[in-house]
Amino acid sequence: MISDNTSCNVNVERTPCDFTIFGVLGDLSQRNLLPSLYQLEKATLLHPETRVIGVARHELSQEAFLTEVRTKLQTFVHEEVEAVITERLLARMRYVLINLDAPEEYKRLAGAVNPQQRVFVSYFSVAPSLFGPICTGLEHAGLVTPNTRVVLEKPIGRNLASSIEINDLVAKVFNEKQVYRIDHYLGKETVMNLLALRFANSIFTTNWDHNTIDHVQITVAEEVGIGSRWGYFDQAGQLRDMVQNHLMQILTLVAMEPPVNLHDDSLRNEKLKVLKALRPITAKNIDKRVVRGQYGPGFIKGKPVPSYLDEKGGNITSTTETFVAIRVDIDNWRWAGVPFYLRTGKAMACKRSEVVINYKPLPHNIFYDSYRSLPANKLIIRLQPDEGVEIEMLNKVPGISDCLRLQRTMLDLSFSEAFSKERIAGAYERLILEVMQGNQALFIHRDEVESSWLWIDSIQDAWAKANEPPKPYPAGSWGPVASVALLARDEREWEE
Amino acid sequence: MISDNTSCNVNVERTPCDFTIFGVLGDLSQRNLLPSLYQLEKATLLHPETRVIGVARHELSQEAFLTEVRTKLQTFVHEEVEAVITERLLARMRYVLINLDAPEEYKRLAGAVNPQQRVFVSYFSVAPSLFGPICTGLEHAGLVTPNTRVVLEKPIGRNLASSIEINDLVAKVFNEKQVYRIDHYLGKETVMNLLALRFANSIFTTNWDHNTIDHVQITVAEEVGIGSRWGYFDQAGQLRDMVQNHLMQILTLVAMEPPVNLHDDSLRNEKLKVLKALRPITAKNIDKRVVRGQYGPGFIKGKPVPSYLDEKGGNITSTTETFVAIRVDIDNWRWAGVPFYLRTGKAMACKRSEVVINYKPLPHNIFYDSYRSLPANKLIIRLQPDEGVEIEMLNKVPGISDCLRLQRTMLDLSFSEAFSKERIAGAYERLILEVMQGNQALFIHRDEVESSWLWIDSIQDAWAKANEPPKPYPAGSWGPVASVALLARDEREWEE
Repeated sequence: MISDNTSCNVNVERTPCDFTIFGVLGDLSQRNLLPSLYQLEKATLLHPETRVIGVARHELSQEAFLTEVRTKLQTFVHEEVEAVITERLLARMRYVLINLDAPEEYKRLAGAVNPQQRVFVSYFSVAPSLFGPICTGLEHAGLVTPNTRVVLEKPIGRNLASSIEINDLVAKVFNEKQVYRIDHYLGKETVMNLLALRFANSIFTTNWDHNTIDHVQITVAEEVGIGSRWGYFDQAGQLRDMVQNHLMQILTLVAMEPPVNLHDDSLRNEKLKVLKALRPITAKNIDKRVVRGQYGPGFIKGKPVPSYLDEKGGNITSTTETFVAIRVDIDNWRWAGVPFYLRTGKAMACKRSEVVINYKPLPHNIFYDSYRSLPANKLIIRLQPDEGVEIEMLNKVPGISDCLRLQRTMLDLSFSEAFSKERIAGAYERLILEVMQGNQALFIHRDEVESSWLWIDSIQDAWAKANEPPKPYPAGSWGPVASVALLARDEREWEE
Repeated sequence: MISDNTSCNVNVERTPCDFTIFGVLGDLSQRNLLPSLYQLEKATLLHPETRVIGVARHELSQEAFLTEVRTKLQTFVHEEVEAVITERLLARMRYVLINLDAPEEYKRLAGAVNPQQRVFVSYFSVAPSLFGPICTGLEHAGLVTPNTRVVLEKPIGRNLASSIEINDLVAKVFNEKQVYRIDHYLGKETVMNLLALRFANSIFTTNWDHNTIDHVQITVAEEVGIGSRWGYFDQAGQLRDMVQNHLMQILTLVAMEPPVNLHDDSLRNEKLKVLKALRPITAKNIDKRVVRGQYGPGFIKGKPVPSYLDEKGGNITSTTETFVAIRVDIDNWRWAGVPFYLRTGKAMACKRSEVVINYKPLPHNIFYDSYRSLPANKLIIRLQPDEGVEIEMLNKVPGISDCLRLQRTMLDLSFSEAFSKERIAGAYERLILEVMQGNQALFIHRDEVESSWLWIDSIQDAWAKANEPPKPYPAGSWGPVASVALLARDEREWEE
């Protein structure tokens, strides 16, 4: 690192905010929101006057609530919890009991928040069926002002129709500028770095199209099976649960045209354009474009794993997919002829989320004597388990040899001594701060949600028409063999 | 490093050779050739039956010669010398006394070498005035066969006319396929790596032209002044001593079109094409294209250094240049509008040889809020003091900030854990081995020498016509201020 230049300060919250979590005792809140607030408190990024309000339907004294939060922080903050920071955070907190279905109970918030004077964020960490009632309740209590913002967690519907329904309910009370739809993948450090890589470095910018890129692979593999989430998951399936949101978001960030700037809707509009350029998948072409799988019994790192159907709560007749692989074509100038291969599954060989940009092979090999077939360059953007950007290139092996010996080398583009000392902030920390600041760029626009569902629905429809069971694959593998064949047909193979 | 692939073995010499050094007791031989042979012996790269013959004009017994070699190895091998390796090398060696001007004395070699049966390499480590006599002597002794190869050290002439004269003398006896003209820069590890970088990696290959590269800088800075070499150097000057060979060679390797392969003359012909495309520098344009300097008194790392004219043996009226900076234009399709700036000097601020590929700035800055002026990417190829390839790019600073903070980061492209353990072979070791194997690709073709002189002569002629003294610069600086102005006129600046 040789220099530093910045005109923006570290992101200390500039105006105080009433940050309200609906469903504060739920799983998402305990695992992600409360620990993120702790980290923001620790990093002194919260405004001194910012308040945190927890809402749930349980009878709970303020004291009991604080004790509960203290306990949860100890469980879910993945480091030694410092008492002084915990107490500083708790001093901001207040518990409010509301039965979310009862509009008249929202008045209880009136003493805790002040949307006339202060920013008022409502984080909907609850089932989507409650989004409508909360909006109504807030309006009923007179808490909807231009200072009010709402954060929606996925899933927003299970298809285009139901997502329109939810978005319409929210839109009755809030305009799009007040709505923050979260996909935590957008808060990841590496996603930000992808923007820097693509748009601040001419070495990559000038190469980012069908002239030099052969194809792109996006993998989001989970090692765990379905575990105790069977009931919820079986209604959704992997396509809705992972592709519609996370994989589509990554795809759009990799594929989008350069935005004019990073303000307001510039970024989101470019992402939307990609979604609109996706070639539809229909009953006609689905056989060659999509692989659908469901895991059978197997072993993950030596431990036996039951089949999806045999998991606790499982229904033996389910045909829900736990794995999808898709060849996506983007019909625009930049990506003509460059397929994007997506795959995502549960009970896979290991946990791994990554994007691999595969460059085209060189047209001619002048190193034929020493290297018969030159491997093409790859740019690997890792999101999990470790975030990072790497490039795979060919270097000369040092030494005197009668021909130029080459070797594939991995270079870590995000590595830097100074960087490595810093703790990488969690995605939720970043996104909570962005909401507090009122920056919408890293949240999903309604148009994106709906364009994405439109495309996903066409796959679901084609599946419904075909009425075929998903292809089995052993837990702990990389999916059905048909997934390998999907790329083999194009004379390519998955990154392993 | 993730894989290794090679069809060529380590470069063990495949046929035995009679390696003869003319001027074996001279400076170059002692400093470079003998230590390189030691390293080749140590690495067991020499054929078991290869012999080394030392030729000089001094009366010396075989025993005294071996003692002399033993002593020199201890001085010039920059590591602990192992006796067992030294003795293995000495066992191959034989001393032959020849007065190089006397053709009849070359018969003495007949017992030591056998060019009818074996490869016979004659390394001319002597003044160019002796190249002709040695050729005549070898022919007279019947030692010129298709197995005979000759290695010529620079300088090959001091202008086009004298280089033609020398080459003609050699050509009377040897055809071009037998002549190996050495520029040790071509033996450097990083020069080889430049070929791999340029022609094995599509990320760079597709970017290597006027569309994405703004300009190129080539610097060869020496920290030492002229010292005791005044007499020799003053006849040459920096342009002839450094630019005509080393800088021109680096320039051609950076600028050349992809060769069809690395055999025979493919590489050399591409380099030649670059030399032929250099825009001539004439009395008309020299003022804007070339800066000529001579060092005055100054300090290098705190130590006082006398002016060039006050060095030992100096002549106060000399107008010989010790510094040159040149804007070179290459008039071909690839490099139209992309200047190559060369600079080289003695008594500079530090020892440094490097090539800096400056990419064009991005056309638009979407990170304006956090970084007002995005620095362009740079690819830095270092030849001295440490060899290596680095890229300077922009990365996101990890952390949550309200705008994307960017930071310039240097990435070492040649770094690899496995690589770093290996000792980097010296340039002479590689080149000696290449001669033994009969590979000419890393040696300079006569056409290159002459094209290069033709271009250099036009600068010398223009200087002679202008008849102006060189511009003074303090020893320990980066040259005359006019060198800064050379780039400033084009709104650019030297890498510091």
